[in-house]
Amino acid sequence: MIPDFEVTILGNTSSIPVHGRNPTAQVVRYHKDYFLIDCGEGTQIQLQRFKLKASRIENIFISHLHGDHYLGLVGLLSSYNLIGRTKPITIFGPKGLDEIITTQFRWSNTRLGYPLKFIQTNPDEPEVIFDNPRVSVSSFPLKHRLPTTGFKVMEKQRQRRLIKERLEEEKPPLDAIKAFRDGNDFKAENGEILRVDDFAYEEPGLRSYSFCSDTIYDEELVPHVMNSSLLYHESTFMEDQKERAQITFHSTAKEAANIAKLAKVDKLLLGHFSSRYSDLEGLLAEAKTVFSNSILSEQGETYAIK
Amino acid sequence: MIPDFEVTILGNTSSIPVHGRNPTAQVVRYHKDYFLIDCGEGTQIQLQRFKLKASRIENIFISHLHGDHYLGLVGLLSSYNLIGRTKPITIFGPKGLDEIITTQFRWSNTRLGYPLKFIQTNPDEPEVIFDNPRVSVSSFPLKHRLPTTGFKVMEKQRQRRLIKERLEEEKPPLDAIKAFRDGNDFKAENGEILRVDDFAYEEPGLRSYSFCSDTIYDEELVPHVMNSSLLYHESTFMEDQKERAQITFHSTAKEAANIAKLAKVDKLLLGHFSSRYSDLEGLLAEAKTVFSNSILSEQGETYAIK
Repeated sequence: MIPDFEVTILGNTSSIPVHGRNPTAQVVRYHKDYFLIDCGEGTQIQLQRFKLKASRIENIFISHLHGDHYLGLVGLLSSYNLIGRTKPITIFGPKGLDEIITTQFRWSNTRLGYPLKFIQTNPDEPEVIFDNPRVSVSSFPLKHRLPTTGFKVMEKQRQRRLIKERLEEEKPPLDAIKAFRDGNDFKAENGEILRVDDFAYEEPGLRSYSFCSDTIYDEELVPHVMNSSLLYHESTFMEDQKERAQITFHSTAKEAANIAKLAKVDKLLLGHFSSRYSDLEGLLAEAKTVFSNSILSEQGETYAIK
Repeated sequence: MIPDFEVTILGNTSSIPVHGRNPTAQVVRYHKDYFLIDCGEGTQIQLQRFKLKASRIENIFISHLHGDHYLGLVGLLSSYNLIGRTKPITIFGPKGLDEIITTQFRWSNTRLGYPLKFIQTNPDEPEVIFDNPRVSVSSFPLKHRLPTTGFKVMEKQRQRRLIKERLEEEKPPLDAIKAFRDGNDFKAENGEILRVDDFAYEEPGLRSYSFCSDTIYDEELVPHVMNSSLLYHESTFMEDQKERAQITFHSTAKEAANIAKLAKVDKLLLGHFSSRYSDLEGLLAEAKTVFSNSILSEQGETYAIK
C-alpha cells in the first residue's frame, strides 16, 4: 500500500481575509503524520469546518511573523489545552514567535497540560529541521520583508508495492514479505535468495512537497524545491502588478510558474492571492503560459502529492 | 427620529469554537457610533460575513485577556492598516493588552498608518471610560479568573420625537424645531414661549446596554447593570453544571436570569455557551423559569436596545 501523501488548503488569501478566503494555513498529511504549515487567524475553525483531525497534528511550521501566517496559533494551542491534550506539540518558526506566544500565555495565566517545544528556524541557510523514519522536513530561506523560510516535506523511503500474483504462487514466509516491502532481498532457510524485484513492483521516485510563501521572485530558491512532486508557491499578483510585487516582496503567478519550470516540479499549486482578485482565472492563465501543470488552490480542497 | 441603538452578535461560544459558534465579539451601534466589545479570533471575518461597517468602529472594549475575548484584535488592527485606515482607534482593556499588541507589531515590523491609543481599564472600581455628546460607556468589575470588566453603553440624551400635526398647524421656525428636539422650550421673536411639550412627545427613559462576560454569579454587579434596556450576560452552563460554573468562574443560565431579575432589566440576552451544548433550548428554558423575557443570542442577529 502506498502511504497517502496530501495537502489540504485551509486558507489562501494574502493579508486581508476577503472573498471568503482565509489567511494562510495548510495541513500536510503523510499517512498518520499530520503537519500544519502556517496558522493564520481562524485556522482552528477551518480545521473543524473541513473535518481534519486537528488532534493528530504534532508539528507546526511557521514561515514568518506577518499576522496572516501565525495569528491563529495561540487560539489553536489554547483549544488543545481546553480539550485536555497531553500529546506534545513542537513549533518550528522564526525568532520572536516564542516571545509572542509566551507573552500571551503569561497574561492569560495559561498552564499548558501538554509539552510545548519551540525550535527556531534559520532564515539564512537550508536545514533539516524534522526527521522521523517516514518523512523529513527541511526549511530554506525565502526573500521577504521579514526573516522567512519555506518548507519541504520529503518522503524518506516508500514501502514497495507487492506483486500479489507472485506471492500467491510462491507463498514466501512473512519475514520475506516484510523484507520485500522495505526493498530488500531475502535469504530463505535453505539458503535460496528471493529477489525483491521478483516480488515487488519497481520503486517509483520519492515524493516531496514544497511550500514557498511569502517570497519575492528568487531563482536562488530553485535548488531547494528541485523536483518537488507538488510546489505551493505564492502568486499574490498578476503581471500588471509586477512592480507592486517587487516592492512588497511578493511574486506574480507567472513568476511562480517560472520557479516551477526551473525546478522541474511535477505540479504547481498557486495561492496567497491578493484581495484585489475575486476571480482568480487570470492568475491561472498567466501561470499556464509558462508552466502548463498549474492549478489554483481552493480552500477545503485536498491535493494528492504524487 | 429616534436614533438606532442595537447590538449585533458576532460570536457567542465559550472558549472553543464549535457548533458553528465563534468566540465572543459584538458590535454595539448607537446611530453613527460603532463600538466593538471583545474581539475573539475571527472577528474581522465575522464583521465581513455579517456586512457590518468595520471601518466605522473607532472604539474597542476588551473585557479580559482570555484568548477567546481578544485573539482577533491584532488581525483586525493589521487589516485596518493594510486598507489604508487613517482614523484613530482607541482600545479600552486590561493591563497587559498593550504589551501583547506591541510585542506582535514589533516582530512583524508593523508601522500603523493611524493613531492607536490604549486606555487601561480598572478591574476594581466602576469608571466612565468613554463619553461623547450622544453616549457614554462605563466599565465595572466582574469576578472571573483574570482581571475582568463588564461594560455599559448608555444613551445620554435622546432627541424628542416631534408631533408632526402640531408642526404643520403652527409652523414654528427651524430654530424652534431644533430646540424641541433637544427638549427645550423656545422663545419666539414676539416674546411668545412655545412649549416643547406642545410640539414633542413625552420623553421616554434613556436606553442602555450592559455586557457581562465572563463572570461568576455575583450580585455585586446588580447596581452596575440596574434598569438596563438589554443585558447580555454570560450563561456558560445549565444548572446541573452549577459546581463547574463556580470552579471556572462562570454562570449558569438561571443565574444570569437572577441577575436580570434583581437588576430589573427589560430583556436578557444569553450568550457565551459551553461547547457541551449543541442545542441551547435547555439553557433558555432554565433562564425563563426566573426571568421570562430571556432570549438566546444568535450569531449574525441584531437586537434592538429599547
